[in-house]
Amino acid sequence: MTQFSSQLLEKAVMEINRLPGIGSKTALRLALHLLRQDESRVEALAESLVNMRRGVHYCKVCYNICDDEQCEICSNPSRDASTVCVVENVQDVMALENTMQYRGLYHVLGGVISPIDGIGPSDLQIESLVERVRRGGVGEVILALSPTMEGDTTNYYIYRKLEDTGVKVTVIARGIAQNDELQYTDEVTLGRALAGRIPFGQ
Amino acid sequence: MTQFSSQLLEKAVMEINRLPGIGSKTALRLALHLLRQDESRVEALAESLVNMRRGVHYCKVCYNICDDEQCEICSNPSRDASTVCVVENVQDVMALENTMQYRGLYHVLGGVISPIDGIGPSDLQIESLVERVRRGGVGEVILALSPTMEGDTTNYYIYRKLEDTGVKVTVIARGIAQNDELQYTDEVTLGRALAGRIPFGQ
Repeated sequence: MTQFSSQLLEKAVMEINRLPGIGSKTALRLALHLLRQDESRVEALAESLVNMRRGVHYCKVCYNICDDEQCEICSNPSRDASTVCVVENVQDVMALENTMQYRGLYHVLGGVISPIDGIGPSDLQIESLVERVRRGGVGEVILALSPTMEGDTTNYYIYRKLEDTGVKVTVIARGIAQNDELQYTDEVTLGRALAGRIPFGQ
Repeated sequence: MTQFSSQLLEKAVMEINRLPGIGSKTALRLALHLLRQDESRVEALAESLVNMRRGVHYCKVCYNICDDEQCEICSNPSRDASTVCVVENVQDVMALENTMQYRGLYHVLGGVISPIDGIGPSDLQIESLVERVRRGGVGEVILALSPTMEGDTTNYYIYRKLEDTGVKVTVIARGIAQNDELQYTDEVTLGRALAGRIPFGQ
């Protein structure tokens, strides 16, 4: 049990320590760093956190994080509204946007079905996706969830839910990653890469 | 360059990213974690940081961090005021207090002399230490700085500064650490452990 000579310091370290992946030593290091900064810098950090928590909305169409009712992607008329890519979270939207290859819209589930973590379909934005497709205008739903058991389960659940809407449901390709070495690739990935082969030159 | 769908999120990530040792991915992860917390929890974190920065003082005697003019150690009458242990920073005070072996007071330098980092004696609480000793009542100054070149330089500088005050100056023992294996101990440490040997049973 560490002895703190200042209760204000102790309180700050305790609060920082609550953050995921930040241990007590790191929390102390960060607190002492902030003590050495200008007061205005610490205030800027504190304000940015509170403003973010208070001001951030979830887009009413795709549930991506945004500052308004509807996110910039959904309100961009040059994006292809007939294609909806289903992802787990906000980081996945960023990752796909960084490829600069995708011009459609998104649907952020907020996770995947995981009974062990107590996450069922009703905890995710699946019903809203089905409604969105039923409203019309969507020609293809691309499933881009994690290639895990939970992701596969969620993919299948969504596929069944969308089956009678007639929408085209696709899933992103699974195979060997760029620059991976074949000999070190696991058998499941290699098997799927083989099964998912496409004509050369396509 | 990551695309943020929310400027409030982007601003918070940027601020968190300024902290030492927190990269942009960790900053995003922490920001999204805070977004999922209750507003009151985020406010508690933000307040604790600002309150700490605004409220924390440095003890006017030993320059340890505290909430008042004088720290709890310096104002504790049961501590031995005739012994002053010189340390680099606040974490070192905590580490020594955790041993529960030390009943004297401290003097927190705020670093060590390091020309390469532009830190000279005047940037540290060395003059205040000399004055403290000159005011009388101190019988022993224990040097407990890092066993590095900078620490050794600072030890020697302080020793020279205190030479004419007549105070006893000691330095904490250097030797092999508890549970270290002799064969893996570096030669400088081993040489010092040998030179600093004491009668068995002491």
